[in-house]
Amino acid sequence: MTTHEYAIGIDIGGTTTSFGFVDRSGKVAVEATISTHAHELARKLVERICATIDGLRCSCEGDIRLTGIGVGAPNANYRSGTVDHPVNLSWGASTNLVELFRGYYDLPVAITNDANAAAIGEMLFGGARGMKDFIVITLGTGLGSGLVANGELLYGSNGLAGELGHTVVDPQGRDCACGKQGCLEAYVSAGGICRTVSELLALRRDESPLRCIAPAELTSCDVYQAACMGDSLALAAFDRTARLLGMKLADAAAHTGPEAIFVTGGLAEAGDVLLEPTRRYVEEFLFAPLRGSVKLLKSGMPESNGAIAGAAALIWHELGKSVVVG
Amino acid sequence: MTTHEYAIGIDIGGTTTSFGFVDRSGKVAVEATISTHAHELARKLVERICATIDGLRCSCEGDIRLTGIGVGAPNANYRSGTVDHPVNLSWGASTNLVELFRGYYDLPVAITNDANAAAIGEMLFGGARGMKDFIVITLGTGLGSGLVANGELLYGSNGLAGELGHTVVDPQGRDCACGKQGCLEAYVSAGGICRTVSELLALRRDESPLRCIAPAELTSCDVYQAACMGDSLALAAFDRTARLLGMKLADAAAHTGPEAIFVTGGLAEAGDVLLEPTRRYVEEFLFAPLRGSVKLLKSGMPESNGAIAGAAALIWHELGKSVVVG
Repeated sequence: MTTHEYAIGIDIGGTTTSFGFVDRSGKVAVEATISTHAHELARKLVERICATIDGLRCSCEGDIRLTGIGVGAPNANYRSGTVDHPVNLSWGASTNLVELFRGYYDLPVAITNDANAAAIGEMLFGGARGMKDFIVITLGTGLGSGLVANGELLYGSNGLAGELGHTVVDPQGRDCACGKQGCLEAYVSAGGICRTVSELLALRRDESPLRCIAPAELTSCDVYQAACMGDSLALAAFDRTARLLGMKLADAAAHTGPEAIFVTGGLAEAGDVLLEPTRRYVEEFLFAPLRGSVKLLKSGMPESNGAIAGAAALIWHELGKSVVVG
Repeated sequence: MTTHEYAIGIDIGGTTTSFGFVDRSGKVAVEATISTHAHELARKLVERICATIDGLRCSCEGDIRLTGIGVGAPNANYRSGTVDHPVNLSWGASTNLVELFRGYYDLPVAITNDANAAAIGEMLFGGARGMKDFIVITLGTGLGSGLVANGELLYGSNGLAGELGHTVVDPQGRDCACGKQGCLEAYVSAGGICRTVSELLALRRDESPLRCIAPAELTSCDVYQAACMGDSLALAAFDRTARLLGMKLADAAAHTGPEAIFVTGGLAEAGDVLLEPTRRYVEEFLFAPLRGSVKLLKSGMPESNGAIAGAAALIWHELGKSVVVG
C-alpha cells in the first residue's frame, strides 16, 4: 500500500474556515469548511478544526503521512506565530496560533496572513511558477498584498511587510478602518468602490440604477452588474478604482521590480472590467525604463480551494524548499 | 612579505570619477579622483581609469592581489552589465561597462547604480551591519534608493528595482526629468527643495533672504543656511520636503518592512533640519502596527570615500559572500 504525503492547509476567515489535505503538487485531496464563530476564542476554533481533521483522515484512502500545517489567517505574523488584534475575530490582543496547533499535532506549523499565503500558493502551484520577483494583490473586503523578491516572500524585520492596502493615496482623504486617512484600501476594495459610487452620485447627474440602492445595501457586485449593463456611472467608478490601483501598483513596481502582478479575491472577479483599465494606468504611471516589463494577470490559482492550497504551500515551502511543481 | 587583498571600487559621477583599493573590512588603502569628461565616450573614461589604477598599484606597499572590480554608475544595470541612457553622460543608448573593464583586467566585474552600491556598502561596512531588511536613500541631484530584504539587494526581474525617486506624489504635479509628472524626486532632492522655495515665495509674503537669489542660482545649500539662521520660509521648505519624504518612506516601509532607513547624499548633510521632521512624518503616515519599528538614520559610511567603499562592497559581496565585517 502506498503512503500519501499531505500538508494540512487551513484558511481562517471572518465567517468560514476551510481546510484540507494538499499534496506536493498543490492538489487538494480532501477538504472541509466549518463556521468560524468569530465571537469564540481561538482555542475553541482550533479544537473544532482538529476534530474535523481527524475525521478527514479516516476518509482518505491508503496510508497517510501528514508533513506539516500551514495557516492563513487575518493579521497572522509569520515571525511571532501570533495573530494580533484581528479586526473581525474576538480573539483579543494576541493569540499564539502556532502553539495552539502544536498542542494537537507534533508537526511543523507556519502561519501568515491570507495575502502572503496566496503569494506562496501562486509561486508553488499557480501562475508565478518559475518567477523570482512578483506581487499578489487580494481585492476583497480589504486590499492585501504578498511580495516575492529574489524567490522569497518579504516578511520584513517585523513580520509585517507587504501592506500595500495601507500606503497613502491622499493624506486628506477617506477614513480607513486602520485609523489613518486616505489609505489605498479605502478606495480600492469591495467597500472602496462602493464609496467611490457615493462620491460619483454626488458629483454627477446621470441616471443610474445605483441611485436606487441604499448605500448601506450597495455591494461591489451591484456595481459590477451595472457596469456590465453599460451604466456610465458604474463604469466611471471602475475607472477611478483602476486609476488609483494602477498608480500604486506602478509605485510597488518601482520598489521591487516584479515580472508580474497577480490579482485575486472577490473584486478581481470583475475581470477585465477592472484589469483592462488598470493595465493602462500601470503603464501610464510606470517609470519609463520599466514600461512594458510588468504583466498584470489574474491569479492562476483555482477559485474554489486556492486559499487552502496557498496555506499548504506555506508549509511545503518551509519543508526543505524542494517542492515538485508542475 | 604579506600579500594584501583588495577589491577595486569605482564611483562614476557626472563630474568626477573616484576609485581606490578597498580591503575586506571596507578600509580604502589608496584612492584617486579624475574628471569624468561627460562629453567623452565611456571607452575613453575606462582607459583613463585603468591607466591610473596601474599607477595606484605601484604606490602600494607589499604584494597586492586584486580580487575584483565593483562599479557604481548612473543608470547602471546589474543584470545586463550595461549603462543605458545616462542623463548626464554622452555615452549613448547602451554601453557594456563590464566588457570594457574586462578588456583590461581578467577579474570579476559587477556594476550597479550609486544608490544600490551605497546600500551594499551600508550592509557590509556601515550602519546596516547585521541587518537583513533596510533601505538606503541617496538625496543629491536626484533621489536614489537601494532596498535590501532577506539580506539581499533587490534588483527585480529587470535589474531596475529600487527607484523610489520615481514613485508618484501628485499625478498632476511637477514635471520630472524622467518625463512623468509628480515624481517624488521632483520634490525631494537638491533641486526639488529649490522648486519648493519658488512655490512658497509665490504663496507667502514673509521676508526671506531667499527672495534675493535668482532661482537659477539658488542651491539647496542656500536653503539650508537660511534655515539654520531661523528663516521661516526656508524652514517651511524643509518641512514640506520632510512631509513628502516621510509619506513615501512610510509607503516604502509598508512594502518591505525595513528595520531602518538610512539617508545619505548632499541634501542629507542638512542633518536634523531635514531628518527630525521626516522622522515625525514617517511615524504619522506609518500603518499603525509598524509604528515605532522603523528607524530613520544618517548613513554610517564615511562621507569622504564612502562611494568608493560602496562600489567595492558590491564585488566583495559577490565574491563568496563571506566578507569579514566588523
